[in-house]
Amino acid sequence: MKGEVSTVRPTADIERKSRTTSAGNREALEPSSPVAYFGPDEPLRLDAGIDLSPIQIAYNTYGELNADRSNAILVCHALTGDHYAASQSPVTGKPGWWSSIIGPGKPIDTDRYFVICSNVIGGCLGSTGPASIDPETGEPYGLTLPVITIPDMVRAQAMLVDRLGIDTLFAVIGGSMGGMQVLQWTVSYPERVFAALPIATGARHSAQNIAFHEIGRQAVMADPDWQAGRYFAHGKRPVKGLAVARMTAHVTYLSEMALHRKFGRNLQDRERLGFGFEADFQIESYLRHQGMTFVDRFDANSYLYMTRAMDYFDIAADFDGSLAKAFQGSKTRFCLVSFSSDWLFPTEENRAVVHALNAAAASVSFVEIETDRGHDAFLLEEPNFFAAIDGFVSSAARARGLSR
Amino acid sequence: MKGEVSTVRPTADIERKSRTTSAGNREALEPSSPVAYFGPDEPLRLDAGIDLSPIQIAYNTYGELNADRSNAILVCHALTGDHYAASQSPVTGKPGWWSSIIGPGKPIDTDRYFVICSNVIGGCLGSTGPASIDPETGEPYGLTLPVITIPDMVRAQAMLVDRLGIDTLFAVIGGSMGGMQVLQWTVSYPERVFAALPIATGARHSAQNIAFHEIGRQAVMADPDWQAGRYFAHGKRPVKGLAVARMTAHVTYLSEMALHRKFGRNLQDRERLGFGFEADFQIESYLRHQGMTFVDRFDANSYLYMTRAMDYFDIAADFDGSLAKAFQGSKTRFCLVSFSSDWLFPTEENRAVVHALNAAAASVSFVEIETDRGHDAFLLEEPNFFAAIDGFVSSAARARGLSR
Repeated sequence: MKGEVSTVRPTADIERKSRTTSAGNREALEPSSPVAYFGPDEPLRLDAGIDLSPIQIAYNTYGELNADRSNAILVCHALTGDHYAASQSPVTGKPGWWSSIIGPGKPIDTDRYFVICSNVIGGCLGSTGPASIDPETGEPYGLTLPVITIPDMVRAQAMLVDRLGIDTLFAVIGGSMGGMQVLQWTVSYPERVFAALPIATGARHSAQNIAFHEIGRQAVMADPDWQAGRYFAHGKRPVKGLAVARMTAHVTYLSEMALHRKFGRNLQDRERLGFGFEADFQIESYLRHQGMTFVDRFDANSYLYMTRAMDYFDIAADFDGSLAKAFQGSKTRFCLVSFSSDWLFPTEENRAVVHALNAAAASVSFVEIETDRGHDAFLLEEPNFFAAIDGFVSSAARARGLSR
Repeated sequence: MKGEVSTVRPTADIERKSRTTSAGNREALEPSSPVAYFGPDEPLRLDAGIDLSPIQIAYNTYGELNADRSNAILVCHALTGDHYAASQSPVTGKPGWWSSIIGPGKPIDTDRYFVICSNVIGGCLGSTGPASIDPETGEPYGLTLPVITIPDMVRAQAMLVDRLGIDTLFAVIGGSMGGMQVLQWTVSYPERVFAALPIATGARHSAQNIAFHEIGRQAVMADPDWQAGRYFAHGKRPVKGLAVARMTAHVTYLSEMALHRKFGRNLQDRERLGFGFEADFQIESYLRHQGMTFVDRFDANSYLYMTRAMDYFDIAADFDGSLAKAFQGSKTRFCLVSFSSDWLFPTEENRAVVHALNAAAASVSFVEIETDRGHDAFLLEEPNFFAAIDGFVSSAARARGLSR
């Protein structure tokens, strides 16, 4: 359907399929949003060497596609994100995770741009993932779903963008795992990306980051309720293991300074230490809360797949180890943003991408935002960050000939 | 027995008691070493407000106590350390954890000094801890043992030092949790410490460090085999949870640079990615190995107690929040050492102690060792570190009038 004009809105048929392909026991995780369905004639070719079919991609759009189809911005979400970038999540009831950036008059201005955000393949919030029903068995895939990679996610997004009738994206933007997808877009489909904004990310996952992900996976797999990934069949969910995984990851999203400022050694609900193993310190209660609320909204197997996708990410690996080669000849305009206190994707990881882009003679801007809020800063109100996005996107829009 | 002359070597009686107070199912963890036994007439007063009795303290000594009893150095071990500082561990078969520093002609020269190292109270390698038998029930204490603090550990060490007939320690030295004990010694018994060497430590545990410990505790407690701490009674051990806890802690002991240098994204036993959830990367295999070997040598409840002790540590809390007040009037000579890539106890945490000592007009040296090996550097061969220890200890020995 590539090049077709109409924006696909969910039909009753697609909605039905969406429900059918979801495990009954995860209905609470099934959001109501447009869903693009790709049948047996349109399989997704995975890096694992398998054609995955059928697949469905849940997504949301904000703003209007212009007549030229030249004002589309694809927003890529992070590890546990979803396609509710700028609208209330039906799962959590919270505002979209980037509502502060996307909207009328905001840095990603929905009065000017047509914004698309889709749930990644391998996810659990509407797109095909390990909790989806394998049509061959009638059971959830679980670990029988092949490992999904960042290029796989991007290939699926390209199928959606085709379906929406868009040839070239004005911009692709995202932070963390979303930033990996942005970089992958510029390598997989260089001619289809006018401007790229990879934020708080890197061109490959570091040993330390793999280590923290492996801890999370081991925590999930150590939970006997995980049942080798077949927990739905046993009416169970590895909530304790997944909570520990989330707690571990969450600490890496914050900076020591932010933790110190927010919590320090403040005690929870007590005048003095309790001399026991209940949560004494506020940081303990906070982490436990983070763990417990996460398991309500996220599928444990999907967490394994998402972390694996990030760990596998290494753009240079396909280019004889040369990142510059990956970007050779790129006409995309790049803007990279890092945050000074981010220790998950420190500035130097972002700068390595900038250096490769320089070596490839690509057009690139780079800004490091001073903040003590760590990796999570890309999801927070950071005026200098917003100004950087706004300035770069506006400038790219002029170059693209997008009138106000 | 304070001030008594003879060094206590284990008697058949003490040895028997040692075995009796150990849970039968942890015999493999029971090392053979001198054990000091303190009966009902010598209880250990705990910060929790309870008198713990009886207690036993397993220890080792190296070198000879001089006639003046003025050449004793107390070595304090870290979170999962033991009293085999300079001799082979009967549990792991490995050389002592500080064999590179302690020995004839080494920075802590056993030809000159009498070195004592004891297993901390709350531990699991010979001293009284949660796996010891509660005489009131005949069952292992488990979580009925009161929470143990760093001051409690130090109070027990002072009982041992009394028993050994030593009034003033020439030096107290230790890294990480061992460094916390060193600092506590100078506050609890300022007149009994001639020189103090707190290494890679801090005067209180930071929010981030508490967070990582809490993750480890939650991992242990999430393991159904933990059985609310009563796993021995059920013939079980929470090995999976404890392994995840250890993996988490282990990452914090290393630096990103060290992980990158040692492992990078090197693959394990394969030419290419496996597209599954087995260990693909060497860092994954390494971490799994660290987790698995740890559970063979450490008791899960003891891990809860040790981490809690560190989390509770906050010297200034007892001095109206003023660390300088804690050290007021101290005549001890201090030497603090930090490691540049240590992010668990970064240089600034060590420097905060130095500043407080300066404010208290104490005698203090401070050195930051340049290394990319992270927190664990204090256990490794670091020539500049060894030179700093050697120089400070030799200088203090001259001031103490210890002839060569």
